[in-house]
Amino acid sequence: EIATVDLDRAERCGFPEVIFGTGKSAETVIEIAGRLLAHDQHVLATRIEAEKAKQVLERLSDARYNPVARTIRIDANPRGPEVGHVAVITAGTSDLPVAEEARETLAWMGVRATMVHDVGVAGPHRLPERLAEFRDTDAIVVVAGMEGALPSVVGGYVPCPVFAVPTSVGYGANLGGLSALLAMLNSCASNVAVVNIDAGFKAGYLAGLVATRRGTV
Amino acid sequence: EIATVDLDRAERCGFPEVIFGTGKSAETVIEIAGRLLAHDQHVLATRIEAEKAKQVLERLSDARYNPVARTIRIDANPRGPEVGHVAVITAGTSDLPVAEEARETLAWMGVRATMVHDVGVAGPHRLPERLAEFRDTDAIVVVAGMEGALPSVVGGYVPCPVFAVPTSVGYGANLGGLSALLAMLNSCASNVAVVNIDAGFKAGYLAGLVATRRGTV
Amino acid sequence: EIATVDLDRAERCGFPEVIFGTGKSAETVIEIAGRLLAHDQHVLATRIEAEKAKQVLERLSDARYNPVARTIRIDANPRGPEVGHVAVITAGTSDLPVAEEARETLAWMGVRATMVHDVGVAGPHRLPERLAEFRDTDAIVVVAGMEGALPSVVGGYVPCPVFAVPTSVGYGANLGGLSALLAMLNSCASNVAVVNIDAGFKAGYLAGLVATRRGTV
Amino acid sequence: EIATVDLDRAERCGFPEVIFGTGKSAETVIEIAGRLLAHDQHVLATRIEAEKAKQVLERLSDARYNPVARTIRIDANPRGPEVGHVAVITAGTSDLPVAEEARETLAWMGVRATMVHDVGVAGPHRLPERLAEFRDTDAIVVVAGMEGALPSVVGGYVPCPVFAVPTSVGYGANLGGLSALLAMLNSCASNVAVVNIDAGFKAGYLAGLVATRRGTV
Amino acid sequence: EIATVDLDRAERCGFPEVIFGTGKSAETVIEIAGRLLAHDQHVLATRIEAEKAKQVLERLSDARYNPVARTIRIDANPRGPEVGHVAVITAGTSDLPVAEEARETLAWMGVRATMVHDVGVAGPHRLPERLAEFRDTDAIVVVAGMEGALPSVVGGYVPCPVFAVPTSVGYGANLGGLSALLAMLNSCASNVAVVNIDAGFKAGYLAGLVATRRGTV
Amino acid sequence: EIATVDLDRAERCGFPEVIFGTGKSAETVIEIAGRLLAHDQHVLATRIEAEKAKQVLERLSDARYNPVARTIRIDANPRGPEVGHVAVITAGTSDLPVAEEARETLAWMGVRATMVHDVGVAGPHRLPERLAEFRDTDAIVVVAGMEGALPSVVGGYVPCPVFAVPTSVGYGANLGGLSALLAMLNSCASNVAVVNIDAGFKAGYLAGLVATRRGTV
Amino acid sequence: EIATVDLDRAERCGFPEVIFGTGKSAETVIEIAGRLLAHDQHVLATRIEAEKAKQVLERLSDARYNPVARTIRIDANPRGPEVGHVAVITAGTSDLPVAEEARETLAWMGVRATMVHDVGVAGPHRLPERLAEFRDTDAIVVVAGMEGALPSVVGGYVPCPVFAVPTSVGYGANLGGLSALLAMLNSCASNVAVVNIDAGFKAGYLAGLVATRRGTV
Amino acid sequence: EIATVDLDRAERCGFPEVIFGTGKSAETVIEIAGRLLAHDQHVLATRIEAEKAKQVLERLSDARYNPVARTIRIDANPRGPEVGHVAVITAGTSDLPVAEEARETLAWMGVRATMVHDVGVAGPHRLPERLAEFRDTDAIVVVAGMEGALPSVVGGYVPCPVFAVPTSVGYGANLGGLSALLAMLNSCASNVAVVNIDAGFKAGYLAGLVATRRGTV
Ligand SMILES: Nc1ncnc2c1ncn2[C@@H]1O[C@H](COP(=O)(O)O)[C@@H](O)[C@H]1O
Ligand SMILES: Nc1ncnc2c1ncn2[C@@H]1O[C@H](COP(=O)(O)O)[C@@H](O)[C@H]1O
Ligand SMILES: Nc1ncnc2c1ncn2[C@@H]1O[C@H](COP(=O)(O)O)[C@@H](O)[C@H]1O
Ligand SMILES: Nc1ncnc2c1ncn2[C@@H]1O[C@H](COP(=O)(O)O)[C@@H](O)[C@H]1O
Ligand SMILES: [Mg+2]
Ligand SMILES: [Mg+2]
Ligand SMILES: [Mg+2]
Ligand SMILES: [Mg+2]
Ligand SMILES: [Mg+2]
Ligand SMILES: [Mg+2]
Ligand SMILES: [Mg+2]
Ligand SMILES: [Mg+2]
Repeated sequence: EIATVDLDRAERCGFPEVIFGTGKSAETVIEIAGRLLAHDQHVLATRIEAEKAKQVLERLSDARYNPVARTIRIDANPRGPEVGHVAVITAGTSDLPVAEEARETLAWMGVRATMVHDVGVAGPHRLPERLAEFRDTDAIVVVAGMEGALPSVVGGYVPCPVFAVPTSVGYGANLGGLSALLAMLNSCASNVAVVNIDAGFKAGYLAGLVATRRGTV
Repeated sequence: EIATVDLDRAERCGFPEVIFGTGKSAETVIEIAGRLLAHDQHVLATRIEAEKAKQVLERLSDARYNPVARTIRIDANPRGPEVGHVAVITAGTSDLPVAEEARETLAWMGVRATMVHDVGVAGPHRLPERLAEFRDTDAIVVVAGMEGALPSVVGGYVPCPVFAVPTSVGYGANLGGLSALLAMLNSCASNVAVVNIDAGFKAGYLAGLVATRRGTV
Repeated sequence: EIATVDLDRAERCGFPEVIFGTGKSAETVIEIAGRLLAHDQHVLATRIEAEKAKQVLERLSDARYNPVARTIRIDANPRGPEVGHVAVITAGTSDLPVAEEARETLAWMGVRATMVHDVGVAGPHRLPERLAEFRDTDAIVVVAGMEGALPSVVGGYVPCPVFAVPTSVGYGANLGGLSALLAMLNSCASNVAVVNIDAGFKAGYLAGLVATRRGTV
Repeated sequence: EIATVDLDRAERCGFPEVIFGTGKSAETVIEIAGRLLAHDQHVLATRIEAEKAKQVLERLSDARYNPVARTIRIDANPRGPEVGHVAVITAGTSDLPVAEEARETLAWMGVRATMVHDVGVAGPHRLPERLAEFRDTDAIVVVAGMEGALPSVVGGYVPCPVFAVPTSVGYGANLGGLSALLAMLNSCASNVAVVNIDAGFKAGYLAGLVATRRGTV
Repeated sequence: EIATVDLDRAERCGFPEVIFGTGKSAETVIEIAGRLLAHDQHVLATRIEAEKAKQVLERLSDARYNPVARTIRIDANPRGPEVGHVAVITAGTSDLPVAEEARETLAWMGVRATMVHDVGVAGPHRLPERLAEFRDTDAIVVVAGMEGALPSVVGGYVPCPVFAVPTSVGYGANLGGLSALLAMLNSCASNVAVVNIDAGFKAGYLAGLVATRRGTV
Repeated sequence: EIATVDLDRAERCGFPEVIFGTGKSAETVIEIAGRLLAHDQHVLATRIEAEKAKQVLERLSDARYNPVARTIRIDANPRGPEVGHVAVITAGTSDLPVAEEARETLAWMGVRATMVHDVGVAGPHRLPERLAEFRDTDAIVVVAGMEGALPSVVGGYVPCPVFAVPTSVGYGANLGGLSALLAMLNSCASNVAVVNIDAGFKAGYLAGLVATRRGTV
Repeated sequence: EIATVDLDRAERCGFPEVIFGTGKSAETVIEIAGRLLAHDQHVLATRIEAEKAKQVLERLSDARYNPVARTIRIDANPRGPEVGHVAVITAGTSDLPVAEEARETLAWMGVRATMVHDVGVAGPHRLPERLAEFRDTDAIVVVAGMEGALPSVVGGYVPCPVFAVPTSVGYGANLGGLSALLAMLNSCASNVAVVNIDAGFKAGYLAGLVATRRGTV
Repeated sequence: EIATVDLDRAERCGFPEVIFGTGKSAETVIEIAGRLLAHDQHVLATRIEAEKAKQVLERLSDARYNPVARTIRIDANPRGPEVGHVAVITAGTSDLPVAEEARETLAWMGVRATMVHDVGVAGPHRLPERLAEFRDTDAIVVVAGMEGALPSVVGGYVPCPVFAVPTSVGYGANLGGLSALLAMLNSCASNVAVVNIDAGFKAGYLAGLVATRRGTV
């Protein structure tokens, strides 16, 4: 038995285990998905390439594949209305796939998402023009490559947590996303937390956690 | 004029600008604190060494210094009761100063904090024994040096966001905290966000933001 | 003559030279294997891709190929019963190939191996549930990618040496396994030693050495 | 003879050799300054600590020391009016010493400088408020530590070259200025060039070169 | 809407937004180009692979593709005579593609460019022999891989700014261009500014900015 | 309560918790030592500077301090004869402090240790001359800085596990011990495991674990 | 004109310019080779892949290709007897291509070469057994990957310069040859100089320079 | 016995063991020096701070200390005339201490040395002016910090081996000498070998080895 599915996670952590597709065969993905569905848990699988997705969809007819996000979602049962509100903001057009992974994660959590694209700092008037769309959200996901400056600027405008996702977009001294990652970790804005490079899933998940809490205030 | 104090920040971001003490003279700290107090904003200053703190306290009699956290706090006006609930958990005894900086930040924000110390993974029974103290918090700050493993384990037990702070505790291949930082960024727990090395302030601030929101659910 | 086979190694070190397949032609692998067998030494070859393995198996009919581990084994003569006991534990399903390389190495050394899969820290209840399977082993191999936290936790439960193998499983700031490697080197558990990234062979070999010694106690 | 002063540099490059103070005795600084003055060349010495400066000033009475910039200047002969216009902009108060080094360099070149302090991105309204002061300059020096985001934003507002200076201000993952440096190299603004960490002199010099050229347009 | 084209940039910054081709479909490139042309702005697109270029050229008949530079240019309207003068100098023949990207950028800005190829430091007599071609330029772009020494030497001969571009040419300890980048950042010549690895566009743009300014002297 | 002493560790892991002295006050060390002794557990404290040691010894009269190793040991009760046999081998004289830390650890575990000093590879005849002293040990600790080559050579002579400790001895490209660490991780000898830089304690502990096991063979 | 062939190099440096094949078309290689031959200079081209070599050999019938070394040699005129004596020693069989590049370089320089293969440190008796073959050479090239320990050991046996070539052979923490490179730079043997990773050409060239000098002793 | 002096090294390697002063007490230095002198071997000790030197000189009256090089030399017996010829060239005045260490090493080997100081590339006319002093040497040591460009240029002028020593001179992105080291390893000049950062001793030793060989040509 090569997989020990953590079926208790929804209980402990609020949401089920998510399938990390890298290095798993379509067969294994299907089997884990089946076990989650059998326990009435919504399925999210990330990092699924098109070819593997095709094999999964042939077997699990309810599965929906997002080829930009490279995710699969399967609902275990009908969903109620969306709750909370999260903005997903990108610096440039090339950051789209990571933003889409965040959006799919929020959908899987049942959280409403607003997308604001291509408002990076080299055109500094673009972000404030769209402030109304994200000022009152519960949390914000900011996706940026190259110098990774956007989360700090967003953070300077809002009172909610900002989850920054560095992307591998760029070349040369971008070091595959490390430069953006380091910039974000050093953000002078107090409300910026950071996740791994290209980890749209994680930032979406954290923002979704904040948006679905009522809090104890 | 060498400082442009951001007096509007409380309005935009919910909490006032915080004074980063490194490289600022006592004189400059006192001046900025004065301007914040004049605008009825609670003061928090971080990274203040003992000697500099002494000079500040001589001039600002309401200021309280925490020598372990190396922070100064001054209340602009009487506070109401604490709101929300955040746990601050350390892996080892040497992580204390960073945890204290987080605690001071939460106090400045008016958030209730619970401290759980020295429950790192080499004694793996210690953490679950204290689960009751942190399972129902709004957010958790986990402070760990060396291999930085504790946030993942905490993340596996709880349904709230975990803000992980790598510390520079350790030696050799700890690379001044980079090893713990990298470990935390690669956490297999979905609910772990990361801040800069030794950034107790940032993790405290983010956890406090979550704890003071009612949310839009 | 481009290879100087170290036929004396079994004498000096207890076990024969192992063939490192990378950059060697099938022809060269066959020749070295032949020389070892001619000296009555069991053969182990690692890092052999499927295509090269096929060529070797066509010529050496006793050879067995493990496509997950990418290893070839050939016994020089009949073996006695297995001795000692080593556990091989993985954090996630994707760490399987490295764990299999360790298992093949232990088989080649004549040591009994127990496999415990997919018990990483994000589901922290999974490991203690299986403690009985590995608590009394002579040595343990722990295979983990991403944040590399599992060896420390295992180390906290057992009185034997733990040989930690970081894997390249993960993405972004995992740095191809370096992050897990650094975490393991900084383990706060006293009984954790580390080998190279993806070096299932080495960890298996070291655990096997411990398991086959009677000791001088 | 341990120094080969490049007395021809003013001829070839437009401005004389500048004395790099690190690792030179006061005696050596005095000797080189003397040789430059003897050739009617204005003297600029950088990286001169207070104690060494004191020794130099005792011997060269016309020398002026800037203790924040840690520079010494000595005019070889009376100067005409300043030419050109360069802005020096800082992200935070702690970046002051580097900005002062740039300002001294511009003064030594005879270029007019405007200082704009503490307008970093976490208070994003501060920079546009002061646009009138730097929009029509010949070149701009932007000095920033931590995430090094400011040069990109400035670059997005202006039609002149921006010379970005990363500073070592910050802690932890700022890596002594490397994070800011990498961010600046990856700037998505087209008009941002970069110099070494804390290299206020270099950025000032390059901006001064642009400001003192009439161009061949 | 996944692109927010910065049509105001020509106004603010002197030249229009440039299309960064990486990760954009031919369709997206065509659409952005169309919007720029509709606003009478000359188009430059960088990092366009041959196959994508073919698709673009089929739709935009005025587009010209430079396969060495991997750039596309489209003029929005007839151009006047070239202004200013920039030299583009390479250390070795393999640095050609990056130099061509700089040359195309200068052409798009309407600036005259002189190319000086293969004059690296191992044949140190080659550069001074061609001094007449670059001594009186407004700015110089120097393109070099391996040890990245050429910008310092060029800088030692001229009175104008040198924009150094490290290239990924080399192997082993060249670290994909990082070694040349670091060397250039540490240049002992005062007039050397640096851009990202292989960033011919950026160096060309900065040199072009200098060459098209009349200055305020 | 800032320390959660793991009093159960001797039970689970065979040996008690060891006090990591860095960042702990003499008071805290004394308190933890007291609690261990009260439970009949031998005390070992590492990384204790001379001044702190003095304070501890004033209060705990049975404590013995090794100033080269910077360790303190206190026996909880009389010891029996030593068991097992471990060799500690150094490459150079400057590696002594790390070797001494290993030796103290072995003494605390009750294991016999043989020291072989200054037999690094630049004098390659020195090691084989002393083979008799370490060939039949249960495990070997090899301590080396600079190029870290010695563990591989030792590994080539013996049938037992080799625990390699990189030291920070050297300068420049030794990177504070990282170069030796990397070399050891890449050892072509199969029986070499690695611990953190300067981690004499860890290597001693692991070797001691092997030496005190009877094994299940 | 994209190449400025350094035809004077043989005069200044003793040997002609060598063609670095990477990034050059077959056409360019042929042209440069032609110009060298026209000036009676022996041709050596390195880093030529098989396909490109085929094209060159079709046009230059005297050219000889070594597919392991990936080099082409063409003699401009008949050669006299070989001079000097250099040993090329490898740690493992996989280091062969780099060793062959060194051997071809020595042949092009007219120097006698002795090859000693696969004598790495894990079988430490292999090297001294072959001491007679390399003890009296003028210089030695040592080629090693993984931990890069062999040059130090060779250096400890001989009175001549050792030119160490780190190779990219290995995996994981070998960092593409950086680990071996760092080890060699930190060699405790006084007579070890280092060249770039996989730079068989350079080490061969330097050893050849030493071997062809009569010296001024 | 903590030191195993390699008294046979002069026999095997041509010159005696050199004392590496770091981490050795004056007592240990004196003892090793005494043993070498007793065997009629000239003594060289490097990295000896002034205070330690004073203690040594009090006991060994023939010892000469060079405070810039931080070396001690003691002749075992009268010396004959110097042989061979090596040039030591520095890029800047601050590289002096490293150059002096090389010069002392050459003196200890009995080799004639010529010093050429402060001829770095920013004043590119300075080096060719002094070509006569180093063109016909047996080998050259080039010492440079910052961008480390000088060895390549020197290499382009001469037919002998160049031993390049990167120094830690510089700041910021010089990374303590790593940038210069990397540049030198990537030198496009064929005759440049590299040693460790600040390793004046090693470069001097290697150059001395070449200069004292008659060769077998
Ligand atoms: N894209 C992703 N990035 C990071 N973690 C993920 C991702 N997708 C799933 N996971 C987590 O990976 C873990 C599963 O790992 P494994 O056992 O290897 O399948 C689960 O705990 C998930 O929460
Ligand atoms: N080759 C290039 N290198 C760096 N930046 C570029 C390059 N080409 C275009 N850009 C910039 O990239 C930005 C557009 O990014 P995006 O929104 O992702 O298309 C513009 O501000 C351009 O000035
Ligand atoms: N020198 C050392 N190196 C690494 N780990 C150590 C060292 N000394 C003690 N330890 C471990 O550090 C842990 C104690 O950490 P702390 O709770 O911070 O005191 C224990 O698990 C010890 O086994
Ligand atoms: N394999 C090699 N490694 C390093 N340098 C080389 C190599 N082959 C040729 N060279 C050098 O590269 C230079 C030619 O570079 P380029 O002008 O780009 O052709 C010459 O000075 C050669 O000495
Ligand atoms: Mg855009
Ligand atoms: Mg503890
Ligand atoms: Mg799993
Ligand atoms: Mg401020
Ligand atoms: Mg060339
Ligand atoms: Mg020694
Ligand atoms: Mg071999
Ligand atoms: Mg100078």
